Amino acid sequence: MWDALVVGAGIIGLSTAYHIKRLNPHHRVLVVDMLGGPGRGNTARSVGMFRDFFHSRTNRLLAGSSVKFYMDVSKQAGLDLRMNGYLWILSPEEYRGIRGYLRGYEYRMYDGDELERLIGLNTSGNPKLGLPEVECGMLIPKAGSIDVKALVAYYYNQFLRMGGEARFGVKVRRLLLEAREAKGLPGEPHLWQDARVSGVETDVGLIRAKKTVVAVGGWAPVLMDRLGVECHVKAKKRQVFIVGARHGVLNRLVRAGGFLMEGYPPMFILPKFRVYVRPHPEKRLFFVGCSDHLGRPFMVEDKPRPEEEFYEYGIKPVLTHYLPSFSEAPVVGSWAGLYAICTLDHQPVVFEEADMIFVGGASGSGIIKADAVGRVAASLYSGLEEAELYDGRTMRVSDLGLRNRRVEREVFVI
Amino acid sequence: MWDALVVGAGIIGLSTAYHIKRLNPHHRVLVVDMLGGPGRGNTARSVGMFRDFFHSRTNRLLAGSSVKFYMDVSKQAGLDLRMNGYLWILSPEEYRGIRGYLRGYEYRMYDGDELERLIGLNTSGNPKLGLPEVECGMLIPKAGSIDVKALVAYYYNQFLRMGGEARFGVKVRRLLLEAREAKGLPGEPHLWQDARVSGVETDVGLIRAKKTVVAVGGWAPVLMDRLGVECHVKAKKRQVFIVGARHGVLNRLVRAGGFLMEGYPPMFILPKFRVYVRPHPEKRLFFVGCSDHLGRPFMVEDKPRPEEEFYEYGIKPVLTHYLPSFSEAPVVGSWAGLYAICTLDHQPVVFEEADMIFVGGASGSGIIKADAVGRVAASLYSGLEEAELYDGRTMRVSDLGLRNRRVEREVFVI
Repeated sequence: MWDALVVGAGIIGLSTAYHIKRLNPHHRVLVVDMLGGPGRGNTARSVGMFRDFFHSRTNRLLAGSSVKFYMDVSKQAGLDLRMNGYLWILSPEEYRGIRGYLRGYEYRMYDGDELERLIGLNTSGNPKLGLPEVECGMLIPKAGSIDVKALVAYYYNQFLRMGGEARFGVKVRRLLLEAREAKGLPGEPHLWQDARVSGVETDVGLIRAKKTVVAVGGWAPVLMDRLGVECHVKAKKRQVFIVGARHGVLNRLVRAGGFLMEGYPPMFILPKFRVYVRPHPEKRLFFVGCSDHLGRPFMVEDKPRPEEEFYEYGIKPVLTHYLPSFSEAPVVGSWAGLYAICTLDHQPVVFEEADMIFVGGASGSGIIKADAVGRVAASLYSGLEEAELYDGRTMRVSDLGLRNRRVEREVFVI
Repeated sequence: MWDALVVGAGIIGLSTAYHIKRLNPHHRVLVVDMLGGPGRGNTARSVGMFRDFFHSRTNRLLAGSSVKFYMDVSKQAGLDLRMNGYLWILSPEEYRGIRGYLRGYEYRMYDGDELERLIGLNTSGNPKLGLPEVECGMLIPKAGSIDVKALVAYYYNQFLRMGGEARFGVKVRRLLLEAREAKGLPGEPHLWQDARVSGVETDVGLIRAKKTVVAVGGWAPVLMDRLGVECHVKAKKRQVFIVGARHGVLNRLVRAGGFLMEGYPPMFILPKFRVYVRPHPEKRLFFVGCSDHLGRPFMVEDKPRPEEEFYEYGIKPVLTHYLPSFSEAPVVGSWAGLYAICTLDHQPVVFEEADMIFVGGASGSGIIKADAVGRVAASLYSGLEEAELYDGRTMRVSDLGLRNRRVEREVFVI
């Protein structure tokens, strides 16, 4: 019998397991995952960008404290943090929308002429594509890229070092719901029986635990719907396309100067649809993606595939309008993963029911917030009402719960 | 091209179609359903009980105005309304929970001795089953039973009479999402294209409409997840067991007097788990059911089956503890259906996105609230901000929406 069984070795599951073990050194903690090692599912499909530039209290706590943690362990953990920033390219309407909130934040504005000179930006609009003109660019310095694999390895190794255990290649079929006092009747637990989640049924047998932590990312609906408990998380496919930049004008763009790090430009975020372009100067590549909504199904998929059409006819017209240097750019690769979207408010969900602790719904910012979310879930496990975050601030555990949920709307949405 | 296409001919779809046509007599309105006639899906699986006894503003508007409508058209429509009431049997804890809210309501209290005498109630508790003792019974007079088939026929026939049309046996495969200005590109609509739901794809071809109304009850996640729009509705199986009462003590119970209608006792609702027992004196039957939560999956099923074990080991121990006369009662039939549960707050959901109007999530009180919910959805269709309900009161359409949702918590929950 384990004290804690953590289902899912993605970044959220690993952070949660690490913090559970840290807060409860004598507890027996087991992590299981269907894949062959830690962080190999949708965590591995992240673009690996982070920012600590948010307006809402929720995000400033979750992202702010997590990013501080990553910065402090970066050297020890080899996280390869680059503070190359985000360049958020704004239409007049978008700029008006956030202008009133900018006071007190660190940022630098670029006008259209500067952006044209630095990155060849086309600042005009295109009514046929519904694309607005560019008003300005807002460079956010507290943002950059992180080596997700190294972050996974850090949590995993620290967890093992403290005595945590892990089993891979274990497929969880369902959460085990059992009566606290079994009577041996068919179909237990029955409605008059006090029932609890007592572990999981896997393809290699039952694993029982005092508390079962469900940290399965986009797979949440599969386990939770079967249990009949609403977690408000659904999966959506997200695609990333790799564009080669070995030659010509893109080779200059991928090393463009004039921002925060010489030869390492920030991530560009284009107006309206928020097509993003992450430069990879060492590899002479760009990662390009965009989150679509209407028409993109909520669906759990084992191996989501990127769609060539989505780049060619969806992203590319927008991308090449604003950054014409991408017109002849070759797509040299692509991948797709699942976002675990909290459909309530796009913020993480952490709650307990019947000895099952659910943690998920990071909604695309799992890397950015993993440390804090893991601390909140581990605090819930430990019976604490307040989670102490890395930067010393605290968050009420129930703020991310369902009953007394208290999350703030974010102004700086990408 | 239809003005309005209503997908789903359950009670909510029919009420919505009727009120759309009533408010817009010149619009061409089509109802489609996969089954062979109106109201043959989960509407037909209702127990057919209603009440106008609620605390929240939301329910007093939705149920109150609907019940008034049913009472007024009852004779004309042959709804066979019986105001036999609900007898809500309460534990001390349950009574304490609602006592403070009872002022201003019409009800009658029965003490344990009276209930023992009238219906043979066992007022003691059973710690082994976690069953509390009985404090009292609260008889709610504004409640009773309704002929659901007749209500379906009423809306359907009125709709046809106004010139509405219907097609049955039409299976909707998906909502059709199209660009407002198609470019003939593969994979349209793309992210930069303004897209709208332009109808449905069915097994007999496309049906296009200016507005598509999705009123598919428990099937909501199938169509809506595919569209990628969250409706916050999930399906759960609900089971009803038919108990014969032709003989002995049950034959007396099914005609028990001392309540509102001689020879027609109220529906009994037992403490804690809310096992309900609907008497059918003419047929010498009881309908018995109970809504379970933990362990009952959220799942869309074409033909949900009742489970003998659920009655035998789940309901029966509770039922026979409080009403020992059911000990030897024969189960002579059973059925199961799907509740369309709104997992936000168990209240209906009505919203519009991209020319698609969603109406659903009645959460088990679809019959009770159908008229008002249909009026709200039809008001949204008609571009009105306020829905005029049957009793003259109004409700803001956005109160049942997602963006500015404003529903109140209900105190009198069954």
